[in-house]
Amino acid sequence: MRYALLVCYDGTHLSGYQRQKKGERTVQGELERAAGEVFGTPTRVTASGRTDAGVHALGQVCHLDGETSVPPEKLSICLNAFLPPDIKVYKSIEAPWGFDCTRPLGKTYRYAFYTGECEIPLLSRYAAFVRGEVDIAAMREGARLLTGEHDFAAFCASGSSAKTTVRMLYSVEIEREDGLVPRYFITVTGNGFLYNMVRILAGELVAIGQGKGTDALTRALASGERSLLAKTMPPRGLTLLHVDYGCALFGQEN
Amino acid sequence: MRYALLVCYDGTHLSGYQRQKKGERTVQGELERAAGEVFGTPTRVTASGRTDAGVHALGQVCHLDGETSVPPEKLSICLNAFLPPDIKVYKSIEAPWGFDCTRPLGKTYRYAFYTGECEIPLLSRYAAFVRGEVDIAAMREGARLLTGEHDFAAFCASGSSAKTTVRMLYSVEIEREDGLVPRYFITVTGNGFLYNMVRILAGELVAIGQGKGTDALTRALASGERSLLAKTMPPRGLTLLHVDYGCALFGQEN
Repeated sequence: MRYALLVCYDGTHLSGYQRQKKGERTVQGELERAAGEVFGTPTRVTASGRTDAGVHALGQVCHLDGETSVPPEKLSICLNAFLPPDIKVYKSIEAPWGFDCTRPLGKTYRYAFYTGECEIPLLSRYAAFVRGEVDIAAMREGARLLTGEHDFAAFCASGSSAKTTVRMLYSVEIEREDGLVPRYFITVTGNGFLYNMVRILAGELVAIGQGKGTDALTRALASGERSLLAKTMPPRGLTLLHVDYGCALFGQEN
Repeated sequence: MRYALLVCYDGTHLSGYQRQKKGERTVQGELERAAGEVFGTPTRVTASGRTDAGVHALGQVCHLDGETSVPPEKLSICLNAFLPPDIKVYKSIEAPWGFDCTRPLGKTYRYAFYTGECEIPLLSRYAAFVRGEVDIAAMREGARLLTGEHDFAAFCASGSSAKTTVRMLYSVEIEREDGLVPRYFITVTGNGFLYNMVRILAGELVAIGQGKGTDALTRALASGERSLLAKTMPPRGLTLLHVDYGCALFGQEN
């Protein structure tokens, strides 16, 4: 039987999703270790996609194949008993017929940062720090240019093995929340993302918010030149919020 | 010269505000160590009030007396150079004449929790987990009963040395934010708080949200009986947001 899992993790002390050879703590490694305990046999766990070291997830989706006496809805509880505190299976279900978590219709990521004069301990764990102020209207103009189908070759870190660099971004939204310092949330939904794409995109939007203008962004979309764009933002601000399969896989919450 | 400091900390790995004898890491201990380095002499740092082990602050206010060549606005940068990553002085100023940070007009605390089926790693650092669901309308009715001047004797952990247990709560507001799971924020502004008062108050509001009713709350306010109220909520959900001195001490941001 195939099971689908809704997985949350705090990536701060994890070496990313993918299992590493040297025994570093990874989401896949921990999930497979827990699944091995529950199923009593080595069990491969597949995710909708990898996340980098330090990146968080509220709505990662995984699947695994196995046979167990545990009812599908209770599998999450059994797996959690073998998982460390920074990784949790929030829900488990019997996967619909033919379900493959690696073929979603879309994904939503959120990049969080805050501005101000110095780092703030309470905000720094899940958000990047940007010194000074940013112009949200300029950032939204940049977001508008990014929305739609484009060749995002310029937004791809080297080392990627993607066959095509064309992706469709359904929406790029920027929200601001006021407090001691302003906090910003860039929420991006698309049909797929290249290696480091959201973090590069967030870095360019921040640079535009700091007065860079949108010319370089337009030229980068046309030429695919990475060097036109600002630097990649740190992983701690990035969270995989949701993976969309065209149905409420895990009930209303997802 | 007296300096006023706006201080932020992530309380997760701190043994509270107050300096401890045994060499545990505390906010006061770390601030006084940093101040000793900058001023070249042992320097006492005073706060608007203590926070417990595990409690966070975005807007703690402290003062210290000393003489230095560093301009008041740059003192924060010098102190931060000697502070650990989980404590930061966000702003420093020359305190107004006669300023005493221990005599604020009011304080605002926020208690955060989320509901659902199991703990979520990404939410658990700064919010408590409450299993199941809560009724926000019932919680708001409880909040209404708490607002105003009351004898909060029932909301005080034993071991307190407060002269009077009468306090004025200017507002008790409850907000809900939707996502993978609902997140709740109880924001309380008052002229003063007893030991553990916000965490006990939050616990009772959660219990009311779970169907306890408000009779026990009404009786506790009248009788001062702690045993009528639900259990104290964990410190990780509590953040000192703001201390009010009737003026924009640190500029518009505060």
